[in-house]
Amino acid sequence: MDIEKIALAAKKAQINNSGSSGEVRKRALGNICRALTQNKEEIFCANLKDVQRSTAEGLSAPLLKRLKFDEAKLRDVVFGIETLIDMPDPVGKILDATVLDDGLELYKVSCPIGVIGVIFESRPDALVQISALCLKSGNSVILKGGSEARESNRILASIIHDAAVDAGISEGWLGLLESRQDVDRMLMLDDHIDLLIPRGSNEFVRYIMDNSRIPVLGHADGICHCFVDEYADLDMAQDVVEDSKLQYTAVCNALETLLVHEAVAKEFLPLIKKRFDKKDVVIYGCDKTRIIIDCEKADENTYRREYLDYAISVKVVGSLKEAIDHINTYGSGHTDAIITDNKKNASEFVSYVDSGNVFVNCSTRFSDGFRYGFGAEVGISTNKIHARGPVGIEGLMIYKYKLIGSGQTVKDYAEGTKKFKHKKINGEEK
Amino acid sequence: MDIEKIALAAKKAQINNSGSSGEVRKRALGNICRALTQNKEEIFCANLKDVQRSTAEGLSAPLLKRLKFDEAKLRDVVFGIETLIDMPDPVGKILDATVLDDGLELYKVSCPIGVIGVIFESRPDALVQISALCLKSGNSVILKGGSEARESNRILASIIHDAAVDAGISEGWLGLLESRQDVDRMLMLDDHIDLLIPRGSNEFVRYIMDNSRIPVLGHADGICHCFVDEYADLDMAQDVVEDSKLQYTAVCNALETLLVHEAVAKEFLPLIKKRFDKKDVVIYGCDKTRIIIDCEKADENTYRREYLDYAISVKVVGSLKEAIDHINTYGSGHTDAIITDNKKNASEFVSYVDSGNVFVNCSTRFSDGFRYGFGAEVGISTNKIHARGPVGIEGLMIYKYKLIGSGQTVKDYAEGTKKFKHKKINGEEK
Repeated sequence: MDIEKIALAAKKAQINNSGSSGEVRKRALGNICRALTQNKEEIFCANLKDVQRSTAEGLSAPLLKRLKFDEAKLRDVVFGIETLIDMPDPVGKILDATVLDDGLELYKVSCPIGVIGVIFESRPDALVQISALCLKSGNSVILKGGSEARESNRILASIIHDAAVDAGISEGWLGLLESRQDVDRMLMLDDHIDLLIPRGSNEFVRYIMDNSRIPVLGHADGICHCFVDEYADLDMAQDVVEDSKLQYTAVCNALETLLVHEAVAKEFLPLIKKRFDKKDVVIYGCDKTRIIIDCEKADENTYRREYLDYAISVKVVGSLKEAIDHINTYGSGHTDAIITDNKKNASEFVSYVDSGNVFVNCSTRFSDGFRYGFGAEVGISTNKIHARGPVGIEGLMIYKYKLIGSGQTVKDYAEGTKKFKHKKINGEEK
Repeated sequence: MDIEKIALAAKKAQINNSGSSGEVRKRALGNICRALTQNKEEIFCANLKDVQRSTAEGLSAPLLKRLKFDEAKLRDVVFGIETLIDMPDPVGKILDATVLDDGLELYKVSCPIGVIGVIFESRPDALVQISALCLKSGNSVILKGGSEARESNRILASIIHDAAVDAGISEGWLGLLESRQDVDRMLMLDDHIDLLIPRGSNEFVRYIMDNSRIPVLGHADGICHCFVDEYADLDMAQDVVEDSKLQYTAVCNALETLLVHEAVAKEFLPLIKKRFDKKDVVIYGCDKTRIIIDCEKADENTYRREYLDYAISVKVVGSLKEAIDHINTYGSGHTDAIITDNKKNASEFVSYVDSGNVFVNCSTRFSDGFRYGFGAEVGISTNKIHARGPVGIEGLMIYKYKLIGSGQTVKDYAEGTKKFKHKKINGEEK
């Protein structure tokens, strides 16, 4: 099917579905859970083909692990959907209501954004998760998964689409693209697609951002910092820095640059180096760092690097202000932490660091929708508008204004024969 | 001064100001009111130069009227700023708070977006209004006004900048650009400018949207519809349609396309034509319309036209569904109204019409921040993300997540030795 036709169908379905009730969407999610479970052998079989083909093609072990869709993954995604079913309906919430005048009532009402384009990597479970999120929020979705998962994606998309349609959701609400060429054409469809969510490498996300008029929700870099303040508890600092860097190195909220106040550098750097050495972490340090510990020499590009690996940049700074300036200059606005027992310094840090997530005395790795308690996560955004930080289902919502009158004209108010009352109400929508 | 330096200074000032209190911003706004009033003769004098030069250059009468900045305009802008002073501080509001675990508290806190780039036309009062809005919301602003208003803009920008700095706001928070060339360079500064708000012609707004990676808040077209349903009160319909089209034709929320249900077309069209004829409104009608009333023939481009003038497109439709489909196909997502006494039809219309403002039984001209009671208006947006419809000061805000811990690491939760509590709190921020 042609990509434009898929997008147009998705748009049409979304408008049809905007009149559907939360109950229909709930039932659709329930159907999906059942259909996935009932057809699990067929899904596993398709996934096995993908795994076998990809193994033969030499896909790396970590990617093969992500590609695999088995009983455990199925249980996880079904559990995720069940959580969504229990969440309150995000559509049609009255966010604000005002009586403009007698018989003229304004309601600000939450509604879906429209058609969401999602581009993701090898994990087939991501397809299930994001489709369920879009369905719950009343959006249509166009998915492009990795070609290594194409058999799994095909069967999952088909099962999910049909199970929702059986519950009363309009056909075409979910579309699946398969080629890289389709992605490039997708980027041009700003008339039909309202938001793009790319999940992938930095280069890939940047490519999407640079080649489409459609707004993009996401993040390219995750250059996260931890600043060990002069008032830091150095035991705590070691634990938090170790966790931030090493608990999982390949993720966007892992620590990439360690900043240390010069007043504690002499004591702290050798301690943290011991921990890093146990895992063979390569340290790139500034001149002041290299006086204290033995490590590689940092150059001017060091502090813009996102390693996603067993490596870290280290800099000794003279003040809290220098740390903040460094982060605002070299950071990516993702997640930055301070370790300090000084409340004033903590408060200045979280005020002045211009990032979506600013932490005091805890690991950067907490920056995550599930850990934040959102239940479901759309992704992590470093945007400065719409949604920032870990984005839950509310990132898929916008609102419209409904004004319910009884024949009012602006002329009367412009000429002064009538006056606005502008009285807030906590009423039910008419 | 170089545009990049201006933008960098604005960014730096914004970060400095993000630690400033609402009281400082209030005092700054008060200073601005006083400074504008104290220096009014100088302002009027600069404005007179602009008016004289522009008159000599043959600027049209309506634009000259917009260019003029006199006692009345000064009174209006000062009143506007005083309203802003009284509004609650939008910065630092706790939007959500969750205890993730004992001693690990998450706060979602409102904060300014950063640096706002505003490009506006001839009205110098727009400069005052938008600067005050950005100041109140803790943002920096880079302004580019029309060259016809350059003397007025220079003195206003200088007075406003300095009055705020006197109150403790960081220097460079407001920057003024003067040439069209500067605008093109501004569009490239996506590292320093976080949001663009263009106010101007459709072509201009589209140009901005197509030539920058910076997100744009605004609207290009305003192709607003009114649908006279078969269950419409035809007297009300005449009043509302007349007001929507004629109360002020040159604005984005004026009616451009009238849709009439075929069941009432024979009765309604001659009635509304009488009203239109009084103001020499040119009517472009479909074939069915032209059987009933004498008018110009609509062609396939008619329904995509935004006249902003004494002209209207008219189409007879067979059903509510046809009206909705027409609006969703040809509309611009701005403002669309139905006239009906049938509640079910009203409800379907506001659900299925995919526009920022959907009205029942009132004029499209109500679609406006002041009429909605926002106090101050950033502009009207047809975006599907961040802010939609008339945008008040909240359109200049985003949020950050502050996570205040006591040494927590993710490892403990990943390994199951600790468990998240995810308990919502209504507490004060630490």
